[in-house]
Amino acid sequence: MRLVTIDDIRTAAGRIAGTAIRTPLLEQQWADQGPLWLKAENLQGIGAFKIRGAYNAVAALPEPARQRGVVAYSSGNHAQAAAVAAKRFGIPAVIVVPDSTPRVKVEATAAHGAEVVEVPIGERESAAYALAEERGLTLIPPFDHPDVIAGQGTIGLEIAEDLPDVEVVLIPVSGGGLASGIGTAIRALCPDAKVFGVEPELAADTAEGLRTGSRVDWPVDDRARTIADGLRSQPSELTFAHLREVLDGVVTVSEDEIRAAVRVLATRAHLVAEPSGATAAAAYLFHREQLPVGRTVAVVSGGNIDPALLASILG
Amino acid sequence: MRLVTIDDIRTAAGRIAGTAIRTPLLEQQWADQGPLWLKAENLQGIGAFKIRGAYNAVAALPEPARQRGVVAYSSGNHAQAAAVAAKRFGIPAVIVVPDSTPRVKVEATAAHGAEVVEVPIGERESAAYALAEERGLTLIPPFDHPDVIAGQGTIGLEIAEDLPDVEVVLIPVSGGGLASGIGTAIRALCPDAKVFGVEPELAADTAEGLRTGSRVDWPVDDRARTIADGLRSQPSELTFAHLREVLDGVVTVSEDEIRAAVRVLATRAHLVAEPSGATAAAAYLFHREQLPVGRTVAVVSGGNIDPALLASILG
Repeated sequence: MRLVTIDDIRTAAGRIAGTAIRTPLLEQQWADQGPLWLKAENLQGIGAFKIRGAYNAVAALPEPARQRGVVAYSSGNHAQAAAVAAKRFGIPAVIVVPDSTPRVKVEATAAHGAEVVEVPIGERESAAYALAEERGLTLIPPFDHPDVIAGQGTIGLEIAEDLPDVEVVLIPVSGGGLASGIGTAIRALCPDAKVFGVEPELAADTAEGLRTGSRVDWPVDDRARTIADGLRSQPSELTFAHLREVLDGVVTVSEDEIRAAVRVLATRAHLVAEPSGATAAAAYLFHREQLPVGRTVAVVSGGNIDPALLASILG
Repeated sequence: MRLVTIDDIRTAAGRIAGTAIRTPLLEQQWADQGPLWLKAENLQGIGAFKIRGAYNAVAALPEPARQRGVVAYSSGNHAQAAAVAAKRFGIPAVIVVPDSTPRVKVEATAAHGAEVVEVPIGERESAAYALAEERGLTLIPPFDHPDVIAGQGTIGLEIAEDLPDVEVVLIPVSGGGLASGIGTAIRALCPDAKVFGVEPELAADTAEGLRTGSRVDWPVDDRARTIADGLRSQPSELTFAHLREVLDGVVTVSEDEIRAAVRVLATRAHLVAEPSGATAAAAYLFHREQLPVGRTVAVVSGGNIDPALLASILG
């Protein structure tokens, strides 16, 4: 299996410039458990990192295939990302989302001109493949593709440029595209840094898989329990192979810790994070004993939280 | 009366580098009423722009005076700013705050090692002068000082660097230090841009003063009505003289518009803004008819909102 390289990530960086925002790396002065920077991917145009991988994958398509259009399935942010990428190229996009997706994400996707199809969470992948077949669309997967991984990896490039002496990088893990890409970049550019994935306890399949040495399947209904609705997927063979190479470990965080991290990010960092996007900060806040001491970057992967949920966490 | 110049602002920029964050200027893709960038001063270490002016003023003091310490009065964010600036120099700080100040701001100030004195809002200035006299401290005013104005002006330098063809700049106005400084920088570097102050309707003394041609006093109890607790001051002779020079107008926004802007900033821009910090965005959202069309920057001046208030706005 060929893994994504730093050269693939550099190529992706050239493609996405002008579409993805180069998000700020924000030093936190309140953080008294060791120096902390937040990579604020919640400040991307779509409110999440997913635009990087989706746009890179669409940009890499041969022109005739691209013109026929794309289809994507997603728990939410990849949906918006694929829709925006298609809009940029002026091509059709069909987005398959689980019917449990927060309204805020469904509406944001439709607002970008995409056709949105809602299906039960277990059927989203098969429905997307069927649509691709029927309509001649190219499937843009949320994580299981080298171009998607390379696109997400551009975050690692930016971290290495902005903080070359970073010592610890904390990255949410779901399907693993984000951690695969960032980990690959950090390994290449900051070889002394330690890279950790972060998962909810309720969707800790990657922690178990890396411990046992091979990918494990958790029932989708189990994974659907976590409040971190963006972290309910699990790695593919491709991303798992990357994670084995690039991760020094996985930290698991509880639901209460995720909620507390959303609150801390809002009140201390003045950033709105969705639960998935707050997990890396939760690891910093509540699991220092499992992490090396040092200059730490937590990736805040997204900010698309339902306002009512944010209100309940703050109130 | 000598007004602050672009050279003063450049000097301030050199002093505050390494203490104040160079905050990101964030392009907003959701903004369908014309191109919008947010200058995210809520992402400063203290959650507000005030560190720029306070640090510049402390840094500019002669060494013997600085060693005796400083005193400041403030509705909140300047308090934290003066405390942090003093801590950086290792000198004593006494902060006088109105007894109506949100707890989040009082606690943040004390956490920086300052002595906090709470007094009725009308007495904060006199109390600060009395403390300065008694203890030999230097008063660092929240806005009525050339070094404070020059420090806030560094925001304008950054806007001009990041978006040289900016056409409209929207700035919250209270005591007027922020708008005086930014306006001076924009006038010098982007002479074609229009610069507007933004005030709550309930504290619209500057709008009235510029209309009538001279500074007006509104009763402090009237100004205390607005939810924008950072915008309850009014200009001094010094800042009013600057505002006459640099503002093309003042837009006033309602309390409902301020609340709505806090919500939009959280849900669309993923930024936590305090009410005062959301007023410029409110002008963009709800008063387009009073503003020129064009590439617009709204300054999000701060993010220190009580979590319960943010929850009530989102819920």
